[in-house]
Amino acid sequence: MLVNNQPYRTVWLEGSTVRLIDQRLLPHRFEIVGMPRHEETARAIREMIVRGAPAIGAAGAFGLVQVVLEAPEGPGRDAYINAGEALLRATRPTAQNLFYALDRVRRAFDGLPAAQQADAARAEAEALADDDVRQNEAIGRHGAELLHNGDTLLTHCNAGWLATVDWGTALAPVYVARRAGRRIHVLADETRPRCQGANLTAWELLQEGVTVDVLADNAAGLLMRRGEVNIVITGADRIAANGDAANKIGTYEKALLAREHGIPFYIAAPSTTFDLNCPDGDAIPIEERGADEVHYAWGWTDEGKMARVRIAAPGAGARNPAFDVTPAELITGIITEHGIIPPTRDAIARTIAKP
Amino acid sequence: MLVNNQPYRTVWLEGSTVRLIDQRLLPHRFEIVGMPRHEETARAIREMIVRGAPAIGAAGAFGLVQVVLEAPEGPGRDAYINAGEALLRATRPTAQNLFYALDRVRRAFDGLPAAQQADAARAEAEALADDDVRQNEAIGRHGAELLHNGDTLLTHCNAGWLATVDWGTALAPVYVARRAGRRIHVLADETRPRCQGANLTAWELLQEGVTVDVLADNAAGLLMRRGEVNIVITGADRIAANGDAANKIGTYEKALLAREHGIPFYIAAPSTTFDLNCPDGDAIPIEERGADEVHYAWGWTDEGKMARVRIAAPGAGARNPAFDVTPAELITGIITEHGIIPPTRDAIARTIAKP
Repeated sequence: MLVNNQPYRTVWLEGSTVRLIDQRLLPHRFEIVGMPRHEETARAIREMIVRGAPAIGAAGAFGLVQVVLEAPEGPGRDAYINAGEALLRATRPTAQNLFYALDRVRRAFDGLPAAQQADAARAEAEALADDDVRQNEAIGRHGAELLHNGDTLLTHCNAGWLATVDWGTALAPVYVARRAGRRIHVLADETRPRCQGANLTAWELLQEGVTVDVLADNAAGLLMRRGEVNIVITGADRIAANGDAANKIGTYEKALLAREHGIPFYIAAPSTTFDLNCPDGDAIPIEERGADEVHYAWGWTDEGKMARVRIAAPGAGARNPAFDVTPAELITGIITEHGIIPPTRDAIARTIAKP
Repeated sequence: MLVNNQPYRTVWLEGSTVRLIDQRLLPHRFEIVGMPRHEETARAIREMIVRGAPAIGAAGAFGLVQVVLEAPEGPGRDAYINAGEALLRATRPTAQNLFYALDRVRRAFDGLPAAQQADAARAEAEALADDDVRQNEAIGRHGAELLHNGDTLLTHCNAGWLATVDWGTALAPVYVARRAGRRIHVLADETRPRCQGANLTAWELLQEGVTVDVLADNAAGLLMRRGEVNIVITGADRIAANGDAANKIGTYEKALLAREHGIPFYIAAPSTTFDLNCPDGDAIPIEERGADEVHYAWGWTDEGKMARVRIAAPGAGARNPAFDVTPAELITGIITEHGIIPPTRDAIARTIAKP
């Protein structure tokens, strides 16, 4: 997608350096950072310089290429590779795409002679990133059929192109519909505590010329009651075999509101987000993040400096679960690269290949 | 209630000056401000130096006393009083208590000789403030019967003593239960965009020694799903004759979640919050506030300065409805000074006297 009218991906490998858009600085500064070693790529995932399940997957894949490039020849090689992979695997617990990506790249070089491993890993990671782009574009084509000229779409958090290698998941249908000449207006939940809706979703939509209103996470209910929302589409971090979907905290509330008001609620995700080994939502681990995210808000001061301000009373505790689970029965359909499927065990088993 | 172990009310009249706790500075600075004329009292309501439906009512009552004190004798007197009352009435559109308070004080001095009007107005405004304190204490006694030792209560926005003259509405039961030796833990939705939960609710509870965790407005659904919430109590800005209740934006979503999880959801409000002339929630006007509240967050920097930070992408629009309506069927009961009543037209008509 476009940034200042230049096409970009969110993450790519340049030699042995992983390059990333620093998403913590958006929307106020657009900056590409380089991670020369796998430890730094792991840190970039952990500290959310890169975020969004598919983008995390690609960053993890490139990080594992770095591990192979860095690994010594001789007896310590396997241990180094195992430790590097384990470090990348431990960065974030919820996004399925990370584990898929690490497994896929690992299988591509495992068992090969040491001298061939790096090339094999690199080729597989590049293929994975390209697959993500193709899959998301297909999600966009399928999802665009749900969007009519003049529709208002509500989304939560950022499942746009910044959350993937390119195109996005929940927002890919908006981009496809727009290129087909339809006018789609987006309502973006700001998505506290990290406000990826207010900063990332709004920013990337505006770069592509899509109009967007930001709203407090509290406001969707009233707007739905007034008939101002035609459709809800969000991404997912992991989808269980029965169709339960983990996504950014608050997604569940929007799904419940959508059902109450008869508004279709879709999850958009590539097959790499499905975890067929996970029977249902209760088996998805939910990351709990630190209290500071809740106690503070981050942004730019009127003087143009990045700063945090404390909003919570000193002495207060905090609860900060980063994801919640939307049960399958609240989901109208799942938009995948293979088409829109119902959130049922059968449909998922038929559509999504076991990795 | 206590601030630094000294008892305070949120608003009172001292001579001809309305004194207020400046709630925009909390929790970081505790400061009493004085409004020497009614125009400044009106500004304090409009700019939310004082907020919370019952506290707005008391501030409006004292403001009308100021109008009477300021009014010239002779032919311009009535016009001055009418204009002053109209200014106060136009400050905030949703809170019923403001209109109740202005009507009540007006009736107390209307038709009296000019020389007696000020004393009559002052006595009525003082009585109204004292009534609010007594009513809220009664709400606390009735509501405390719903709270068991070890319970976790979720609340939204601030309906504590800062939102009233004293005691609070939604939090009064917590204070009464606590004084009876029960341990109640509070989960406070931060309540974007103005974060009255994170700053005011957390602050006032901590001053009274009640433990509190702040959470993003997105998080209640997951915690309810996990069984971590025993009861939800919020305040209200206006309750229609059929039991529909307008309260801070987001309340509706919490009520819907509570029903989905079989958790009791109560509204706590004195009879002054009921508007029997309002047939149902659709007739309650919903204030829309400016975009800046959504685009920015306010708080204190690490250097101890009050500042705002911009969180939304430049160029994005915003939607900022300040209230939503919780339909009566989602409300388990309404905690009033007369007891806990079902949210039905009959029970409300029986319990709440027409003003």
